[in-house]
Amino acid sequence: MNIVQKYGGSSVESIEKMQNVANRIIRKKEEGYDVVVVVSAMGKTTNQLIEMAKKITINPSQRDLDMLMSTGEQVSISLLSMVINARGYESISLTGFQAGIKTEGIHTKNKISDIEIDRVKKHLSNGKIVVIAGFQGMNEDGDITTLGRGGSDTTAVAVAAKLECVCEIYTDVDGIYSVDPRIYPNAKKIESISYEEMMEMSSLGAKIMETRSVEIGYRYKVPIYVASSLVDVKGSLIKEYDELMENKSITGLTISENVLMITVINVPYSPENISAVFSKLASKDVNIDMISQTSPNNSLVNLSFTTSKDEEYTVMEVMTQLKNQFAHIEIQKDIAVTKVSVVGMGMKNQSGIAAQVFKLFADNQIHFKLVTTSEISISYTINSADKQKAVSILAEAFNL
Amino acid sequence: MNIVQKYGGSSVESIEKMQNVANRIIRKKEEGYDVVVVVSAMGKTTNQLIEMAKKITINPSQRDLDMLMSTGEQVSISLLSMVINARGYESISLTGFQAGIKTEGIHTKNKISDIEIDRVKKHLSNGKIVVIAGFQGMNEDGDITTLGRGGSDTTAVAVAAKLECVCEIYTDVDGIYSVDPRIYPNAKKIESISYEEMMEMSSLGAKIMETRSVEIGYRYKVPIYVASSLVDVKGSLIKEYDELMENKSITGLTISENVLMITVINVPYSPENISAVFSKLASKDVNIDMISQTSPNNSLVNLSFTTSKDEEYTVMEVMTQLKNQFAHIEIQKDIAVTKVSVVGMGMKNQSGIAAQVFKLFADNQIHFKLVTTSEISISYTINSADKQKAVSILAEAFNL
Repeated sequence: MNIVQKYGGSSVESIEKMQNVANRIIRKKEEGYDVVVVVSAMGKTTNQLIEMAKKITINPSQRDLDMLMSTGEQVSISLLSMVINARGYESISLTGFQAGIKTEGIHTKNKISDIEIDRVKKHLSNGKIVVIAGFQGMNEDGDITTLGRGGSDTTAVAVAAKLECVCEIYTDVDGIYSVDPRIYPNAKKIESISYEEMMEMSSLGAKIMETRSVEIGYRYKVPIYVASSLVDVKGSLIKEYDELMENKSITGLTISENVLMITVINVPYSPENISAVFSKLASKDVNIDMISQTSPNNSLVNLSFTTSKDEEYTVMEVMTQLKNQFAHIEIQKDIAVTKVSVVGMGMKNQSGIAAQVFKLFADNQIHFKLVTTSEISISYTINSADKQKAVSILAEAFNL
Repeated sequence: MNIVQKYGGSSVESIEKMQNVANRIIRKKEEGYDVVVVVSAMGKTTNQLIEMAKKITINPSQRDLDMLMSTGEQVSISLLSMVINARGYESISLTGFQAGIKTEGIHTKNKISDIEIDRVKKHLSNGKIVVIAGFQGMNEDGDITTLGRGGSDTTAVAVAAKLECVCEIYTDVDGIYSVDPRIYPNAKKIESISYEEMMEMSSLGAKIMETRSVEIGYRYKVPIYVASSLVDVKGSLIKEYDELMENKSITGLTISENVLMITVINVPYSPENISAVFSKLASKDVNIDMISQTSPNNSLVNLSFTTSKDEEYTVMEVMTQLKNQFAHIEIQKDIAVTKVSVVGMGMKNQSGIAAQVFKLFADNQIHFKLVTTSEISISYTINSADKQKAVSILAEAFNL
């Protein structure tokens, strides 16, 4: 039976840690599994490589940057494979392209288009442990590419999809929690969670896995087990939604503090004007998260939206242009805001979650500024000062 | 017109040094050349990577070691290419396999079997500066391989052979000297030297280039220009032998101090016994350099041979076995010996060089122990104490 295990940078940051990782890999092999291991670059290597490039220019050629960054995982796979080989188990290290990872898109942000899995399968059938460099592949032109943030998870889940097996993600946390335990220490570990909920939580700011890795798992029905590489405690399983999960209306709560809220006051109301604001932002590649618009009053409307704090400079540039266009508008900027979201497949069938949250907030004098909803989540923008209180109230109310 | 430039590890050990290298590359480009650059790993990177591997085991899996070491040049090419791109010239970095370098043999000591040069040619014809990782390639199985000592020179000369152009080797010395200037400061820089002489000098211990790089140059008639990457002075050209070079009987003098001399006394004379000694050494992969045998006396002969000091442990093991076989032999070990060789195509046509050297040694009380000759060289093993004197006498006599 095949299994894919992925180990992140902190799990392989030293030879000593690699020895621990090798223990886990060998244990699986001894249990009879054909083991594929996907690894990230050691510790902070990727950042150090980027720092080197930044010494040359703040805007290094992206193809060269991929060439540079991909060495990080290549070092990891060669050393980890040496460790396994030295322990008397046959291991083979493969770069992304050697493992058949084909990618497309722009450099430093490629996507996996396909995996030619034959070479991996051949080594597995010869009894070898296959150690694959995460985060990288090769495009149609034969250029080395990288997959962007969370790329090693993507590699692992995609390989597991091709091998039709479970994917185990080993990291420095011991599972998925209903709430970030650093903010709410009583948070409960989730035994199992549906792909949909996990995707929603990831895209709402939970940092445990990137949305697109979970999305690949969802599309190809790859069970993803998230656990600690350091301690031997039970982790969390991301899998298809089933009836047993339905007991809870809310599965998790995510908190995002990287929120910039902008309010544009007194925009002369017309669909063209509203559209102009967001077209301008889109043309600068600013990703808008939440939007709300008041109803027109004297043919004027107020518009609020949120985006990432990283976009502050670009957004304010656009706002200045806007003020030139509409002399009477006012711009308000708020960075002391936090987005709190509740997520749960149970919302599909249970109405009234939003009402329940509104009541909890009202009873506890928590003001919220923007609200958006999806089929399985509701997000609220609140003052950052109320974050801790809001999280505790919601976590207790929904037993998270 | 094409040109290949190779820069060694010390020439690219920092971003600052890479900027200097970029100056030279860009100058050639501006002169109208289509430039291919071959680079080594930065500074001592390769040794550092080997040290990491040695922390795991003294005998790391060789395929993994190649995978590890090859990252060194990959870092160099990506950074150097970024430097060139940032200066406004179009550059493309290629790993060994991307540049079409096909290899065969055992890991860490592969040889180039062929180069599929089309990709390099395509980029050149698009006006790009092509930056290739030296020292590495890919074998038939699609494994990343390395080429052993001097591998980046080999890559550079082989690429120049395919492109039918000159190969410039930039290093930390400013040319080829008739004698190692660290031992004989008055040594003259050689303006041009034949492939045959350079191969002979390399194999006799001159460290400037590995024999096999010169050999590829010889086979494919690639002019090889050796010069400094730091200062702008004229270097030395390795090229086909021509009549003008014939003025001198001796072109160069090499000194090797990595010599272990063993003398086996009182071996019962028979071709089988002599053969047994060298078969045993060969079976342990000990490379024998010079051999001399006295004529039999009372059916006993004395045998002397030299090898590298690195082989001492293995050689002495074999000698112990030999003593078990022949009770009456005696073994003498001498590590205080130096091999001095004179090299020159002129020897082919001028007789009496050996006699001239013998007389010089006799006049100056220099004892020599072993003598071997090839068509264009004569090597003498002398006491290390006499090295400086012997070198001066020979250099002066032959105007080196």
